[in-house]
Amino acid sequence: MSEILVRGATFNQKRADILVTDGKISKIAARISARVKKTIDGRTKAILPGFYNLHTHAAMTLLRGRAEDMELQEWLTKKIWPQEAKFTADDIYWGTKLATMEMVKSGTVFFNDMYWHQEAAMQAAQETGIRALIGLTLIDSHPFGQKEQVMANWAKLKNKQTDKVKLALAPHALYTVSSENLKWAADFARRHKLLVHFHLSETQAEVAACQKRYKLRPVEFLDKIGFLGPDVILAHSIWLSKKEIKIIAKRGCSICYNPTSNMKLSSGVMPFTQLKENKINICLGTDSASSNNNLDMIEEMKIGALLQKLNNGQKIKTKDIFAAATKNGASSLGLKSGIIKEGQAADFILVNTKRLDFLPGFNLLNDLVYSVSSECVDTVVVGGQPIMQDRKIAGENELIKQINIRYNW
Amino acid sequence: MSEILVRGATFNQKRADILVTDGKISKIAARISARVKKTIDGRTKAILPGFYNLHTHAAMTLLRGRAEDMELQEWLTKKIWPQEAKFTADDIYWGTKLATMEMVKSGTVFFNDMYWHQEAAMQAAQETGIRALIGLTLIDSHPFGQKEQVMANWAKLKNKQTDKVKLALAPHALYTVSSENLKWAADFARRHKLLVHFHLSETQAEVAACQKRYKLRPVEFLDKIGFLGPDVILAHSIWLSKKEIKIIAKRGCSICYNPTSNMKLSSGVMPFTQLKENKINICLGTDSASSNNNLDMIEEMKIGALLQKLNNGQKIKTKDIFAAATKNGASSLGLKSGIIKEGQAADFILVNTKRLDFLPGFNLLNDLVYSVSSECVDTVVVGGQPIMQDRKIAGENELIKQINIRYNW
Repeated sequence: MSEILVRGATFNQKRADILVTDGKISKIAARISARVKKTIDGRTKAILPGFYNLHTHAAMTLLRGRAEDMELQEWLTKKIWPQEAKFTADDIYWGTKLATMEMVKSGTVFFNDMYWHQEAAMQAAQETGIRALIGLTLIDSHPFGQKEQVMANWAKLKNKQTDKVKLALAPHALYTVSSENLKWAADFARRHKLLVHFHLSETQAEVAACQKRYKLRPVEFLDKIGFLGPDVILAHSIWLSKKEIKIIAKRGCSICYNPTSNMKLSSGVMPFTQLKENKINICLGTDSASSNNNLDMIEEMKIGALLQKLNNGQKIKTKDIFAAATKNGASSLGLKSGIIKEGQAADFILVNTKRLDFLPGFNLLNDLVYSVSSECVDTVVVGGQPIMQDRKIAGENELIKQINIRYNW
Repeated sequence: MSEILVRGATFNQKRADILVTDGKISKIAARISARVKKTIDGRTKAILPGFYNLHTHAAMTLLRGRAEDMELQEWLTKKIWPQEAKFTADDIYWGTKLATMEMVKSGTVFFNDMYWHQEAAMQAAQETGIRALIGLTLIDSHPFGQKEQVMANWAKLKNKQTDKVKLALAPHALYTVSSENLKWAADFARRHKLLVHFHLSETQAEVAACQKRYKLRPVEFLDKIGFLGPDVILAHSIWLSKKEIKIIAKRGCSICYNPTSNMKLSSGVMPFTQLKENKINICLGTDSASSNNNLDMIEEMKIGALLQKLNNGQKIKTKDIFAAATKNGASSLGLKSGIIKEGQAADFILVNTKRLDFLPGFNLLNDLVYSVSSECVDTVVVGGQPIMQDRKIAGENELIKQINIRYNW
């Protein structure tokens, strides 16, 4: 028996039935008859791929609104790191749980996480039912970030990975991880077939420090030590030379654009057009809720497109930013998902189009990117499992209660 | 008898009762006993001033998503103006009605409008119950924009003004109105005590054209002809010299910041910090839904603050952008409103704080500006009249039906 039949949803400007079997979209047709466990009425809704949030630190949602109006280095060293040092595994569980529910409510089906207490984060993601890549974070000066700790966590957690929730290796950045440890990380990741999640060239100061230390720009240095490859996801990647862009293209890395965080921390503007011209796979991420301050990929698409239009004119199109938020993200993970098509993973959302902000309705994608609020997301299905319907997620009220009791700052 | 008693709402980090009498906030205290027509339970809500949208073209909501990925001049001349030429008074009524409902749903209590068929726009605003300033638009080349037409409309509509819905004079811009007609407009406005609504220096091309035509920068020219004063609201105002900023400060004009539209049309960045340092009254507006593509002032605050942080570092603070969206807007209109305080107009919103995106709740204003979606707005009161409660506005479903029937593009 198939899992889900969505009836009469808007798909490519027509109405279609969509059948889900074994976690995949098995059939799309004008009218489908099938024995199914669950039928969803899609008649006032449009079906779209869910969003892939390719760079975040989920549990930092607990620090939302904690420190405002500061630039990156001051914000990290004076406000964020001292608070983070006090977080226990229990805090990470609750913070990640809050983040995953917020992500699902805004249509996100996957997040790429870099943080601590990975077992707690995996548990929270598994309970919510969202896809996740949980990074084993490497930071030279951090008690949890030593390579011995990373190896121990990998050994302990590798068998707890599921189809939806997997581990990655996450060396933090050039300014926090030594050359020796970066080489070790790339080697370890390739030996165990792990994806690599890394912060690249978020600020000009970071590039200058690298040039001083290694006499090379960051990407030149990373390439020299064999760090770069198609298994590497580079967050931020703002301050890149033409030569660095060519290297990234050649090595097949994916890049994650984080426009809101980059604006909020005065970091700069990722060169979207140049990356696109070099056929680099551009994904989209929210970064954490402490520098955003939410995890809303619909808002992120709008801000991301606006920022490029201001800086590079009208070269970025609606379809480019939508692809970054959906299929490019799935592609960076090697997942057959991010498109509504037979044979793809059933990771989709149903969007309620009977709303003022979808009127008069010239173009669904233009409205989605530039007009609507993420509250239009009605239903979220991940790997064939409905995890939100009618905007309701199991346990949301209990979560609000627990966060209010535990984090009454 | 008083109109409304709000019980136990969050106000300045405490709980308070708020009494509304004769359209004004008459008392704020920990506990109020009074005979009232209506009691509102505020216990899971925060009370805040409603938003003042100081620059829009409401009926253009009908053109939402109609033309994307274009710069201002091409977008106006090839797509927007030809479509607008076909609009009837009936279209303006429905477009403005849609816009006012969308504005109320996102917490807006006032809009400053510049468009055509003013009688239809006044009617739509009055039916919704929102405050509005409806501009009598002057454009030399437009059949409806002649000064004879403006005078006739003023004569016909001046007695249809209400406490909430008033008329203004709206000479469009330097590139569409002659020097002679601008002088006439300023004179007419002052004779009839009307506010003036004007597009200033939105693009560099506009400034260059003015310099070529008049041998002066736009503000220098406008000052020379006696156009500027405390009754003038200047939208956009991106490309300003230091000298022009000094002139605007001296003349006491208000400026309306339109960050989303300015990014989307690749126009530029308004110099918020320099205007603030010169003590100019900075307001906030969405511009129309065809260059935004919504009328959401909560989103506008976020995008406006982010844009300044990217361009000018951390000088803009949360309270600055919140003031621009509330009390500065009211102040530009000479209204005693925009603050929750005894004696002020009862133009306020109740925001539902029992939501994931308000957690963990360090700081209400930071969360409002940077985290939450406008769907947190639960109740909107304008001049003591509740026009939305529990997110319900009278006639919303009927409006959706009518727009779908009439504008099935």
